Amino acid sequence: MPVSKKEISPCPLDAALSIVDGRWKGTILWRLSQQPMRTSELRRSIPGITERMLIRHLQDLVRDGIIERIEELATPTRVRYQLTAYGLTLAPHLEALCAWGRIHLERTKPVNQK
Amino acid sequence: MPVSKKEISPCPLDAALSIVDGRWKGTILWRLSQQPMRTSELRRSIPGITERMLIRHLQDLVRDGIIERIEELATPTRVRYQLTAYGLTLAPHLEALCAWGRIHLERTKPVNQK
Repeated sequence: MPVSKKEISPCPLDAALSIVDGRWKGTILWRLSQQPMRTSELRRSIPGITERMLIRHLQDLVRDGIIERIEELATPTRVRYQLTAYGLTLAPHLEALCAWGRIHLERTKPVNQK
Repeated sequence: MPVSKKEISPCPLDAALSIVDGRWKGTILWRLSQQPMRTSELRRSIPGITERMLIRHLQDLVRDGIIERIEELATPTRVRYQLTAYGLTLAPHLEALCAWGRIHLERTKPVNQK
């Protein structure tokens, strides 16, 4: 009988990566690790992301307890997203990966752009 | 004109995540961060992975300079994979993520399994 990977042994690294597994989730978390942001601000800061994809990623991250949705007391209602206390425990690891990614981008940049 | 995300601004975090972006790449790297392994050993250690998927992931990781393919001087020829010096610079970040993932798995485990 085929057994799914999850049924056998959940890999902790996979579990962590599954949180940021999404076209733009890493970028969203990176932005929110700098400061809380409104949906519209997030969207402007991530060129190319669609409204639908942004909302879906935000919902996933809220569901996973990494970010929270805060309704500001204003008219019209404004919503901002921020990392939860739990999400903040992930942030340093993402920052370390980001630093590595900077080196990696530099390393993989075409010679004529260096 | 639609512009791809990569054309606008490569996100360093995305660049790092793209290395482990694959159903089993994180697990493969995790295994190889412990010790060099042969293809058959890797396959046995990752229940559920297909030969084809394993080979594809290994090729990607070799192409990205994260692991290297070593042909052992033996008959029949045996191949083992190991992290490159460059891959070793990524390993500590994966280990940190893995530690976070362990906490996350514990946190998300159903109450009756705790």
